[in-house]
Amino acid sequence: MIRVFIFGISGKMGQILAHSLPDDFVLSGCASSSRIDEAPSDVIIDFSSAAATEKVVALADKLNCPLVIATTGQSAEDEQLIKDCSKRHAVLKSGNMSVGINLMLKLCDTLKGVGKCEIVETHHTKKKDAPSGTALMLKDASGANEIHSIRLSDVIGEHQVVFGMENEIITITHTALDRRLFAEGALKAARWLINQPYGLYSFDDFLTSKKHPSLFHSER
Amino acid sequence: MIRVFIFGISGKMGQILAHSLPDDFVLSGCASSSRIDEAPSDVIIDFSSAAATEKVVALADKLNCPLVIATTGQSAEDEQLIKDCSKRHAVLKSGNMSVGINLMLKLCDTLKGVGKCEIVETHHTKKKDAPSGTALMLKDASGANEIHSIRLSDVIGEHQVVFGMENEIITITHTALDRRLFAEGALKAARWLINQPYGLYSFDDFLTSKKHPSLFHSER
Amino acid sequence: MIRVFIFGISGKMGQILAHSLPDDFVLSGCASSSRIDEAPSDVIIDFSSAAATEKVVALADKLNCPLVIATTGQSAEDEQLIKDCSKRHAVLKSGNMSVGINLMLKLCDTLKGVGKCEIVETHHTKKKDAPSGTALMLKDASGANEIHSIRLSDVIGEHQVVFGMENEIITITHTALDRRLFAEGALKAARWLINQPYGLYSFDDFLTSKKHPSLFHSER
Amino acid sequence: MIRVFIFGISGKMGQILAHSLPDDFVLSGCASSSRIDEAPSDVIIDFSSAAATEKVVALADKLNCPLVIATTGQSAEDEQLIKDCSKRHAVLKSGNMSVGINLMLKLCDTLKGVGKCEIVETHHTKKKDAPSGTALMLKDASGANEIHSIRLSDVIGEHQVVFGMENEIITITHTALDRRLFAEGALKAARWLINQPYGLYSFDDFLTSKKHPSLFHSER
Repeated sequence: MIRVFIFGISGKMGQILAHSLPDDFVLSGCASSSRIDEAPSDVIIDFSSAAATEKVVALADKLNCPLVIATTGQSAEDEQLIKDCSKRHAVLKSGNMSVGINLMLKLCDTLKGVGKCEIVETHHTKKKDAPSGTALMLKDASGANEIHSIRLSDVIGEHQVVFGMENEIITITHTALDRRLFAEGALKAARWLINQPYGLYSFDDFLTSKKHPSLFHSER
Repeated sequence: MIRVFIFGISGKMGQILAHSLPDDFVLSGCASSSRIDEAPSDVIIDFSSAAATEKVVALADKLNCPLVIATTGQSAEDEQLIKDCSKRHAVLKSGNMSVGINLMLKLCDTLKGVGKCEIVETHHTKKKDAPSGTALMLKDASGANEIHSIRLSDVIGEHQVVFGMENEIITITHTALDRRLFAEGALKAARWLINQPYGLYSFDDFLTSKKHPSLFHSER
Repeated sequence: MIRVFIFGISGKMGQILAHSLPDDFVLSGCASSSRIDEAPSDVIIDFSSAAATEKVVALADKLNCPLVIATTGQSAEDEQLIKDCSKRHAVLKSGNMSVGINLMLKLCDTLKGVGKCEIVETHHTKKKDAPSGTALMLKDASGANEIHSIRLSDVIGEHQVVFGMENEIITITHTALDRRLFAEGALKAARWLINQPYGLYSFDDFLTSKKHPSLFHSER
Repeated sequence: MIRVFIFGISGKMGQILAHSLPDDFVLSGCASSSRIDEAPSDVIIDFSSAAATEKVVALADKLNCPLVIATTGQSAEDEQLIKDCSKRHAVLKSGNMSVGINLMLKLCDTLKGVGKCEIVETHHTKKKDAPSGTALMLKDASGANEIHSIRLSDVIGEHQVVFGMENEIITITHTALDRRLFAEGALKAARWLINQPYGLYSFDDFLTSKKHPSLFHSER
């Protein structure tokens, strides 16, 4: 059993994570903005916010375990804390914990430069930021020159990258169907991370460490 | 100037090819089912049919030049003739001469095995075969277990490969906007092929010989 | 407050319905396959199964209130029971309780006959039936001659109707983002139904009784 | 045989029109910016530009025949000239001569007000204006609050209207596959117009005058 500590337990993603634990995981401890309930753990998953970075890396030291960081928006100091932490523990940091988007970044990189590229991302009306952080990651990977943001309904998240070539276009679309997607991505990454030596890892490091995609991802 | 011989000049693709020649190409000779107008040439592009394979490889010998074969459905004997021909000339054979589909095959191969996969291909009502040859190529590359064929309107060709994972899907779609696409793909391949030594090449060999996609494909 | 009785409380949709009640509804009573907890009610919403039709209409008589039936697959006898019940109570029966699909049926009817039409419906891998009941309704409305069923991932439900005309196509797509959609459609129908005289109503009757769509449906 | 006069013969659409004449049409006369070759005609189709409005209505008087205007951007004076002309001749004016887009305007009107709505329109890189005139027409019909314009490749024209509701979305997409679409729309309208009394008609008047869509549009 992998004892997982959830940092940010009271947030939306923290709650989904707590309710998504597969059979080989058990909740060992948790932390919200008001309190930290420490307990021996095999891995920490942080879905709180960049503001908690200092506390999170301190906890990794205290519990002496790996750390999965799913938050974004770290300051330069936070990034340094994370780097230092990775000299003592295995740390995986990613702006998007879905296996699909990370695969999509690779696909976009393959097509980068074939022609003009634009991105259309669609999210629910309550999403405050535009463009989405994921769209910005896709922009880098694809070389897109424009991102169109659509806000309507309760769309969890759809990202479409359109590559134009002469007389043909290739469109790559990622559709998130349930927010548990991100929780499960973080758990898969955690399951892998606990067997890695100290260092700073990306979600792509996790993906590429597998010989064949089916080893880490299966359709149930 | 590259002197190009068009085999299958009277067919739909042969006609489009003849009218699509870029500035560095000139039509040297042509052949239809009834006659062959030979002339010194730098490359032959064959858009006729598999039935003409024997005549086409004979012509490559006679004109002593490379050969681009865009036809499909060769018999075992035809395949052998092509193989023999490739010991004397550079021969490029492909079931689909669009740069986009060939890139898409690579993308599908990257995602192969991530989960259940299905293909939807849409073509105009006059297309006799189903599924399309391109869909069969995509099926191999992606590991899809099913191809859905839609026949309506005047759709030139759209191929959509849907990969299902847990709580997310990735869809890759290729849309052909104009039949000149295939003619231009063949011409690009020919432009590359005339500088290659004898041997049997695929469209992918042509693609991967480029250091960066933008070297062979640009948006005008 | 509208006192709503949920028939089929232990099923997936029954549970979602019980947890989706808006501020003007309160759960008065419920029934599962094993027991019926009667209580004075203003409307019954049935998400159980066609097999319970006899019990459901009997309950409408006992509680003397309107009835929303969301189940499908009624036998001829069941249909007669429902008809008889509608002579005494307002009864609304629909194979799909989403406002969107019912609007889509109208759109399909507008385009019916313009040209060849095909349907692609995508659902999660656990959905046993193919094609979906909704796809069959869309087939009738649109005159489509073929339905393609894709089963992968956790897709809640996407229905795409493609109309082919000369040199152009129109595609209408409905995407369900959350199963609460169907519960909420049934609740909206119930809110309308309690003010109607006895009779047999369709979801379309509910839709068309509104002067302007915004009166019954708003984006929050 | 319907004798058709093409105004704007040397432009791209004028050329496509001249080469798209069905069996029951014959080219009677034509006009470009430099000259007008008059001849007895049954209908004039104008694909030139709004600047030629004065000449076009004068020609309708001279040839005493109906007039199909496919241009946009008329000034107030031009609009008045057209109105006056329609008191003597049957005049049909439309910003989009495709049957599909005009049907789509009706569909959008049906969904207007159901929720937030946005439009994505995609055209080739050489299209100077953004958003497209068709997108503006769709905006009016649908109540959309935003239009996203994508410019890449050689896309002839795709318009996508997305309607967001609670937990579901409906997307209506129109795809033009060949520019002959617009020429053929104008010809169909002309074939109908020559049997109408004087007056000012829209493309929708043409559509709604048919009892059933299949009477004016068939899939070949």
